[in-house]
Amino acid sequence: MRELVHEAARRARVAATSLAVTPRGIKDAALLAAADALVEATPQLLAANAKDVDAARADGTPEHVIDRLALDADRVEAFAQGLRDVAALPDPVGEVVRGSTLANGLRMQQVRVPIGVIGMIYEGRPNVTADAAGICLKAGNAVLLRGSSSAKHSNAAIVDVMRAAIEKAGLPADAVQAIPADDRLSATELMQARGLVDLVIPRGGAGLIQAVVEQSTVPVIETGVGNCHVYVDADADLDMALDIVMNAKTQRTSVCNAAESLLVHRDVADAFVPRVVAALRDAGVTIHGDPSFVAADPAVLPVTDEDHAAEFLALEISAAVVDSLDAAVEHIRTFSSHHTEAIVTSSLASAQRFAASVDAAAVMVNASTRFTDGGELGFGAEIGISTQKLHARGPMGLPEMTTTTYVVTGEGHTR
Amino acid sequence: MRELVHEAARRARVAATSLAVTPRGIKDAALLAAADALVEATPQLLAANAKDVDAARADGTPEHVIDRLALDADRVEAFAQGLRDVAALPDPVGEVVRGSTLANGLRMQQVRVPIGVIGMIYEGRPNVTADAAGICLKAGNAVLLRGSSSAKHSNAAIVDVMRAAIEKAGLPADAVQAIPADDRLSATELMQARGLVDLVIPRGGAGLIQAVVEQSTVPVIETGVGNCHVYVDADADLDMALDIVMNAKTQRTSVCNAAESLLVHRDVADAFVPRVVAALRDAGVTIHGDPSFVAADPAVLPVTDEDHAAEFLALEISAAVVDSLDAAVEHIRTFSSHHTEAIVTSSLASAQRFAASVDAAAVMVNASTRFTDGGELGFGAEIGISTQKLHARGPMGLPEMTTTTYVVTGEGHTR
Repeated sequence: MRELVHEAARRARVAATSLAVTPRGIKDAALLAAADALVEATPQLLAANAKDVDAARADGTPEHVIDRLALDADRVEAFAQGLRDVAALPDPVGEVVRGSTLANGLRMQQVRVPIGVIGMIYEGRPNVTADAAGICLKAGNAVLLRGSSSAKHSNAAIVDVMRAAIEKAGLPADAVQAIPADDRLSATELMQARGLVDLVIPRGGAGLIQAVVEQSTVPVIETGVGNCHVYVDADADLDMALDIVMNAKTQRTSVCNAAESLLVHRDVADAFVPRVVAALRDAGVTIHGDPSFVAADPAVLPVTDEDHAAEFLALEISAAVVDSLDAAVEHIRTFSSHHTEAIVTSSLASAQRFAASVDAAAVMVNASTRFTDGGELGFGAEIGISTQKLHARGPMGLPEMTTTTYVVTGEGHTR
Repeated sequence: MRELVHEAARRARVAATSLAVTPRGIKDAALLAAADALVEATPQLLAANAKDVDAARADGTPEHVIDRLALDADRVEAFAQGLRDVAALPDPVGEVVRGSTLANGLRMQQVRVPIGVIGMIYEGRPNVTADAAGICLKAGNAVLLRGSSSAKHSNAAIVDVMRAAIEKAGLPADAVQAIPADDRLSATELMQARGLVDLVIPRGGAGLIQAVVEQSTVPVIETGVGNCHVYVDADADLDMALDIVMNAKTQRTSVCNAAESLLVHRDVADAFVPRVVAALRDAGVTIHGDPSFVAADPAVLPVTDEDHAAEFLALEISAAVVDSLDAAVEHIRTFSSHHTEAIVTSSLASAQRFAASVDAAAVMVNASTRFTDGGELGFGAEIGISTQKLHARGPMGLPEMTTTTYVVTGEGHTR
């Protein structure tokens, strides 16, 4: 398995070296061709997907998981459209990040260049295969795709169609390769191919991400675990606070930018806690609350530290009353996953102090946590949401899939 | 040892949380106070340093290593001046990297914020202690300094003086802490304090850096190993090429941006190889060359792949003739450490192709490799030169010691 993964990585390096000097026009044409080819291949993709769905059903996989796995013509069209959207975005490669002429006449430019070979280790949905390949390609990188074994037929079919299409358009087919998903070892070898693979991005549940972070010797960008808080400040507009809590918790529960924890300033607890408890209850949300919340409704369960730390991804929330903004920040720093923290306040000072103190990829002031999303923030395509501090933090789009080179030009300059 | 390092890291986190909201004026005043305090404490620093120097001499340490370890009044003044220079640089914290108002009225800003707690693991020179502390502080980070045991008295004295000075100026003393250097375990615990330490930066020889990269579970930025090449293209001005080769190889040999390898295009080999061999020989440089070089001078040693891969850090160079620019790129991609690669050419196409293909932190066109340096490129202070692709690549100054937060402000926006 090691030799297989290393060989794939070496072929990817050759492809990446050529992609690095491929102009935007050719990359975009290849992405559009891949989009058309995927739509055209819908019958084959659905047939491959049916094998995965049948196997999942035979294994007793729950229907909501099967729903994420299953493809139909609309879903194929959606990820083809995703590739067209990526083609329409500006090419990050060649962007001059900074530049100046130095006192001695040297001309210095910091220029965006591709990272090289990127490994994706991901679960579930087959659309990640097309999305990740498209984003990596556009930024001039080769990608090794290691999806879950439950989607192996679907992923292999998507990769086959994309490889054929981009090769016809003049890109090296090896810029997009699937790594066999049947053997656990293939993921391990991928994350330990230091020197051959430049970056590994895990995308999936907390367990997957933790395993990659611990075992990888290749640099990793962590994505996506979100224990997001909404803090209702003493100066909050309580109608706005209620809207934001309900939206952040209930609009879509299975996503990393959904709220999992609610903190309420003591000054507004009497006015707000009963209202929010009633609204959450009406929406079917289970509340794990501190005594103030339990007092508002006996259906509230007593909260534990585990609840405060949990990413429920369900109609479930932890809740507590805090004595001050600083106590809220302290609570968040203790339990957060550094994804998104929201404050509802009409105080400028509170907003600024909260934003400077919570240590998160994103801070929402009077807005739902659900806005931490590449699409919502106008970045176009997104390959994941980084919750770490190095290289990329928050939604990662095309620029985050590049590194830079300083190009310094002189006329024989020496020191 | 684990508890000691973890406890230091927890105190550093508390300090970092407060530093993150400390305005520039206070940080700068603390840096200036620390500079003055170091100069004032020169007698104590020299006395502490004398203990390290005596111990090193008793151990039979070579004089050139002792020279790097030894302090005098001028060196103390030099690192005090380094702190003053850092104080004069703009504060990266709070810089808005990008910002816009979205279609729905949300105002989005990507703002630089400190990374948090940074661990430095380094060898040799005591000046790194003051330099690293200054750069970390200015960017709002707390730093845990784990120097080499050979400099332990010097480093402890510098840290003591700096802690007292910054505390008097209103910063938490725990923003700068020394980690005991006597026990190897302290370095291991520091690089494995995941969650407590946000970033580890190793600075020293290749062995130290490799050990940190392999053992660290905290994210690492690799620095400083440089197997830098100078490639003399078919279109090169050969006088310029000779100047650049000699400067890159001999101006200072112990630094990572010195040249270690020379490649010459076959078209100019007859004209250039004898000249460069003679000049290198006159400068006392040992040449490990391919047959073309051996033919020019019997004193040239036959080159091996180990030589091509070596970072000599001495008056020693590997050399080969290549058939084309692409062959030069291929050679460099095989042996380089992705630090700095130079091309000497009068061809614009060659310069562009080389820059886009060599996969290095810096590319010099008609300039010496020695210019890859934060000071030379006008960045002011430098904490190291990153040879990796994520987060920072090339000389790392203050902006590289920060991460960012997206601050999104609405008026009750929901999805």
